[in-house]
Amino acid sequence: MNLSRRVTIAGGAITPFIGKFHPDFIWKKHPDFGTRENPTLEQYIHEVALGACQNVGIDPALVDRGYVGNFVGELFSNQGHLGSMAAAAHEGLNYTPFTRVEGACASGGLGIAAGVDAIQAGADIVLVIGAEVQTTRNAKEGADFLARASHYETARGLDPFTFPAMFARRTKAYCDKFGVTPEALAPIVAKAYDNANRNPNAHMREVQMSAEQAGSASDKNPCFLENEELNPWLRVGDCSQVSDGGCAIILCSDKGLEKLGECQGDPVDIVACEVACGPLGQVADLTKMDVTAAAASKAYAQAGWNATDIEVAEVHDCFSITEALICEALGFCGDGEGTQLAAEGATSLNGRIPVNTGGGLMAFGHPVGATGIKQAFEIFRQMNGLCGDYQMESSPARGLCANMGGDDRTSVVTLLQKN
Amino acid sequence: MNLSRRVTIAGGAITPFIGKFHPDFIWKKHPDFGTRENPTLEQYIHEVALGACQNVGIDPALVDRGYVGNFVGELFSNQGHLGSMAAAAHEGLNYTPFTRVEGACASGGLGIAAGVDAIQAGADIVLVIGAEVQTTRNAKEGADFLARASHYETARGLDPFTFPAMFARRTKAYCDKFGVTPEALAPIVAKAYDNANRNPNAHMREVQMSAEQAGSASDKNPCFLENEELNPWLRVGDCSQVSDGGCAIILCSDKGLEKLGECQGDPVDIVACEVACGPLGQVADLTKMDVTAAAASKAYAQAGWNATDIEVAEVHDCFSITEALICEALGFCGDGEGTQLAAEGATSLNGRIPVNTGGGLMAFGHPVGATGIKQAFEIFRQMNGLCGDYQMESSPARGLCANMGGDDRTSVVTLLQKN
Repeated sequence: MNLSRRVTIAGGAITPFIGKFHPDFIWKKHPDFGTRENPTLEQYIHEVALGACQNVGIDPALVDRGYVGNFVGELFSNQGHLGSMAAAAHEGLNYTPFTRVEGACASGGLGIAAGVDAIQAGADIVLVIGAEVQTTRNAKEGADFLARASHYETARGLDPFTFPAMFARRTKAYCDKFGVTPEALAPIVAKAYDNANRNPNAHMREVQMSAEQAGSASDKNPCFLENEELNPWLRVGDCSQVSDGGCAIILCSDKGLEKLGECQGDPVDIVACEVACGPLGQVADLTKMDVTAAAASKAYAQAGWNATDIEVAEVHDCFSITEALICEALGFCGDGEGTQLAAEGATSLNGRIPVNTGGGLMAFGHPVGATGIKQAFEIFRQMNGLCGDYQMESSPARGLCANMGGDDRTSVVTLLQKN
Repeated sequence: MNLSRRVTIAGGAITPFIGKFHPDFIWKKHPDFGTRENPTLEQYIHEVALGACQNVGIDPALVDRGYVGNFVGELFSNQGHLGSMAAAAHEGLNYTPFTRVEGACASGGLGIAAGVDAIQAGADIVLVIGAEVQTTRNAKEGADFLARASHYETARGLDPFTFPAMFARRTKAYCDKFGVTPEALAPIVAKAYDNANRNPNAHMREVQMSAEQAGSASDKNPCFLENEELNPWLRVGDCSQVSDGGCAIILCSDKGLEKLGECQGDPVDIVACEVACGPLGQVADLTKMDVTAAAASKAYAQAGWNATDIEVAEVHDCFSITEALICEALGFCGDGEGTQLAAEGATSLNGRIPVNTGGGLMAFGHPVGATGIKQAFEIFRQMNGLCGDYQMESSPARGLCANMGGDDRTSVVTLLQKN
């Protein structure tokens, strides 16, 4: 849909993404265990809400609308009704309209899409928050919670780790079709860790993973699925992280921009933000991300862009195969060529089309509801030269975010431009 | 916010709201137990999505956008990602953008607000679905799930039935302040059942409750809270029902209306739809619904209406006290006069300002995510003379819906007009 009112990202805030293997994450062997606790979902929401307002120099009372992207707060934190929880961040937010939006791992992207609509409807300053806490339960319980993003009744039996199994199934289909092995995905994993090692907010900022390590199963990188057919097709290193964290951005109309104080960067235009959904529990072709392709097609058409215009991209790499498939769905390469992009260095920090410069879901981390917001904030920060040790040499002017939920069942593709 | 594009409700669909005491609800003593099961969340979503399209004579492929209002599908049905589930209702919905929205019991109203925004942003036909299934667990487990609408960490300890206790607390404060007893709420309850007994879709269509029965605790209408201080202030009859059900409406721009086939009624304008949130876990004054008052104030200002313009209202009566407090917040009467409105018959089917003509949440039922959609569809149906045995004698031209979540922490007030 064409935007009759210009929408920009004016700024935002992000917390470190933390979890297992992050030095600040409290667990039973952490020296602070028993004296300090990890932040709660409420604390993440409040911290980034206030941080984003501060980042653009506004009193929170100036916010016209708010959205909270979150997937399963009801399960990990016993907490729904997160819009009202966000309104508690500051007395200036009392009576502000907040809505929690959910589309599995695309919840953050849906928050941005809703914010774009709100500005079309007349809002001038919109706060879009994403947050998730997932470390309150063990991995198997968490995997059961996350399986709510699939058609639970029919998919849950696939494996105790339902989603890893669903994407192992895609890896198998992809390898069968294109005559490659899972080792072809190793450069995608290694690139993610390489980028994250330069990113102070990354979950895996201190964990290294070479292409050699990623490319073979080992004690440190085991195959872990119980489903025997799918087990060989996925290793721990192919998976995104179970992270806690939050991110928020401020969207503005032109009139909204006039109300801001001092900002940390120049505004970045949202040129298009398009959503597509596919039927839950039904995937037509395991070797394609057709729903993401549909969202991208609509976004490119709206902007009058094509894939060659994109200078930086945040792509939903919930698993290594996902990055390959989405790069193909976005037209960054042809079918079956997604693994080569990383192998050739095209998606590296200073390659032809850098993808997931901060480490992506696999190494920056994946606090589900925050991920879609983080993607947009990353592009904003790359465009404004704010990425420190992982700043691209040439600040990009045109960028793309592809935020995907479930097994490519909800997808949000956003195109961004710095003037 | 002013609407730059006109938004109308063109039609919709609703299922019966069912649960304990409804003749079609399957439970261990039902004759069909073991041979038939109650509908699932997926079935409700699909039934009303297709029903709404059929009701306005469109191919689902014409839907530009969809929203699903649902509170805790992740808990009662192990299912999130309901936008993608809705997209599975019909092949014509493949690639249609759907978003699940959540704001506790105001989730349906938030779906309508999002749909109004979508039309401002350029959509022409928007499908807004609400559905909830709550009968898969027993009452105590369900009460724990529903407590996710409160600030769980601080509120859950109030009582195993957290929300009933929160509203008993409001009843106590109200009675203390205005010098009345809980018996003053009995006419609100009796009116709800009286209306529901005329409504074939109502959960309590076959259960009767007189003002005498509602006004005193008894074996059939017990006080049930464990919290001793709050126990005397609430009876079972003061509570809304734990129901399953779905409802969907079709919102249209003027251009959208031109695409429709045969409709069952004339379109009804949404003149205003305003949302407000208050801080979760903090209520300034237990005798006021200040968040609902804030949403109403914005809606009245936008429409240029006041309370005396309203000819029919759907008011969120999650408990009997809530109807009294919201009638006051909406300006239907002064502070402390909310109970008298029902006692005097003003809110009866053919009173001065009929409220909850189909039985409201207390007797029509309260499948949480569906409630806000049902409210708007009820007003549409009253305005079009489609309410059968509970049709108002004079078809109203101006109506209001107040859909509220949590302890008055998210509120959506919608004003509707038939030209």
